[in-house]
Amino acid sequence: MFFPVDPRADGTILHTGNLAAKSSSGYNLNSLFVGSEGTLGLFTEITLKVYGIPEYTMAARAVFPSSEDAVNAVVSILQAGIPIARSELVDARSIQQVNHYNGTSYKVAPTIFLEFHGNEAGLNQDVGFTKELFSDHGCREFIFETDSKGVHQLWEARHNLAYAFIHGTSGKKMMTTDVVVPISELASAIHDARLKLNELGIDEALLGHVGDGNYHAILMIDKNNPSEVKIADQFNQHIVEYALARGGTCTGEHGVGIGKKKYQKREHVEAFDLMLLIKKTMDPKCLLNPDKIFDKY
Amino acid sequence: MFFPVDPRADGTILHTGNLAAKSSSGYNLNSLFVGSEGTLGLFTEITLKVYGIPEYTMAARAVFPSSEDAVNAVVSILQAGIPIARSELVDARSIQQVNHYNGTSYKVAPTIFLEFHGNEAGLNQDVGFTKELFSDHGCREFIFETDSKGVHQLWEARHNLAYAFIHGTSGKKMMTTDVVVPISELASAIHDARLKLNELGIDEALLGHVGDGNYHAILMIDKNNPSEVKIADQFNQHIVEYALARGGTCTGEHGVGIGKKKYQKREHVEAFDLMLLIKKTMDPKCLLNPDKIFDKY
Repeated sequence: MFFPVDPRADGTILHTGNLAAKSSSGYNLNSLFVGSEGTLGLFTEITLKVYGIPEYTMAARAVFPSSEDAVNAVVSILQAGIPIARSELVDARSIQQVNHYNGTSYKVAPTIFLEFHGNEAGLNQDVGFTKELFSDHGCREFIFETDSKGVHQLWEARHNLAYAFIHGTSGKKMMTTDVVVPISELASAIHDARLKLNELGIDEALLGHVGDGNYHAILMIDKNNPSEVKIADQFNQHIVEYALARGGTCTGEHGVGIGKKKYQKREHVEAFDLMLLIKKTMDPKCLLNPDKIFDKY
Repeated sequence: MFFPVDPRADGTILHTGNLAAKSSSGYNLNSLFVGSEGTLGLFTEITLKVYGIPEYTMAARAVFPSSEDAVNAVVSILQAGIPIARSELVDARSIQQVNHYNGTSYKVAPTIFLEFHGNEAGLNQDVGFTKELFSDHGCREFIFETDSKGVHQLWEARHNLAYAFIHGTSGKKMMTTDVVVPISELASAIHDARLKLNELGIDEALLGHVGDGNYHAILMIDKNNPSEVKIADQFNQHIVEYALARGGTCTGEHGVGIGKKKYQKREHVEAFDLMLLIKKTMDPKCLLNPDKIFDKY
């Protein structure tokens, strides 16, 4: 059966949400547009839901014998239901680069950067429990950043990590992987990635937003050297296939763009055909960010 | 431009998600299907994300001079960033019915039923702060349910509220409204609804999930009495228009179905045309729950 398609890529302005905290009215178009990478429309105006600054914040560094121990420790606090605001794995090579770039002197070993939000009494109890669970996973040092300068320095070091590698590795460019595995698979995934990285013979590091099961490998390569580009591409291919084979996703936050188009059908199977159908319905002439997520048609 | 449409309502089984805690791969089909009321497909298998039972739970009742005071009190704890697990407004008429049906002896006055989740030290601090804020809004009584029997009875009373009205009002049927307004509009909305309800001359009550800005009026009517049906319909119309005029939604949780089809275009404007386009693309023959959300085509 055929019916006339009303082409959407025609300048129509839609409001895809409202000011209600919840709604069961009609389809959830907000979620359809968010993450569509400009392939369904352009955002001309965005209303943000904002969150207050927490009453009390505690930040800490916890040092572990291995990245797998660090991951298992974070999984144990998730399983215990302790609410953590942030938990970032920074491996030994990354800590080295952090120290070099930021002038810090953090111990060069796999480390979890942590942050807790809440009220003071509740956080003291949560942090005490966290320390106990972490020590069960071999945590050697659990260091609080007690003043705002220390907290700021900790997160600045984490945020500057990419720059630390870019500025610290002359003549190389950074290539980053970005997958998510189920939390139960994360420690094995980090272990597998570490073994693979050790074989590459290029400067690399491993880090991740471990509370989400999302991890990144950083590979420093000369993009004019086909052999290094190939090593990085093969490693990325391995990481993506590893994640997809375990029910994960080929990209946790960096998006599909051009580079991960080739994994879309494999990850989504029949659902990919529906995504393409929606794209073609809303943008029949392929005007909106063509060739991203889907091949140009 | 025309292209062949692949009709979806053909028995194809799609997996619309994966086991990753987050993903930026492809379109968010989970959110498109959730709340689509069977108009885009049937769920044949659902994977649930489950949450652990909190370490510590505290439940309380807080009694206020008026429903508006009660709402303003809840808004003040939301603004203060105190995390509350549940906050339910139960007006005086509802408390009367609760007492009658459940054998409780709660004070007959506008009341907030509250629940907090967390660790013991943190909750004691949160609850102390809540009591202070509530007393600023005229809270007369703040009663903890200290044992599990009291907590269970409190929430059972709330859950049984609809049954309490149905069983307690012989020969009448219950009609319920269901809108959400922005939190900043909630106290005025409750006040407006109360004034309107006072004029109706039928048994009614007002309650709500006030943390979400979602409130319900209960109207007990004889569905064979056209005059009572008309009163209820006109009141519902008023409540929906009030919410839509303030950036809210015509249904917070009960859904669109048949009854709220007539508000869809008004609430979503151009976005409604896109919803209909998606529906027609995925179900060209209108086989899937026809005549719900959209008129049958």
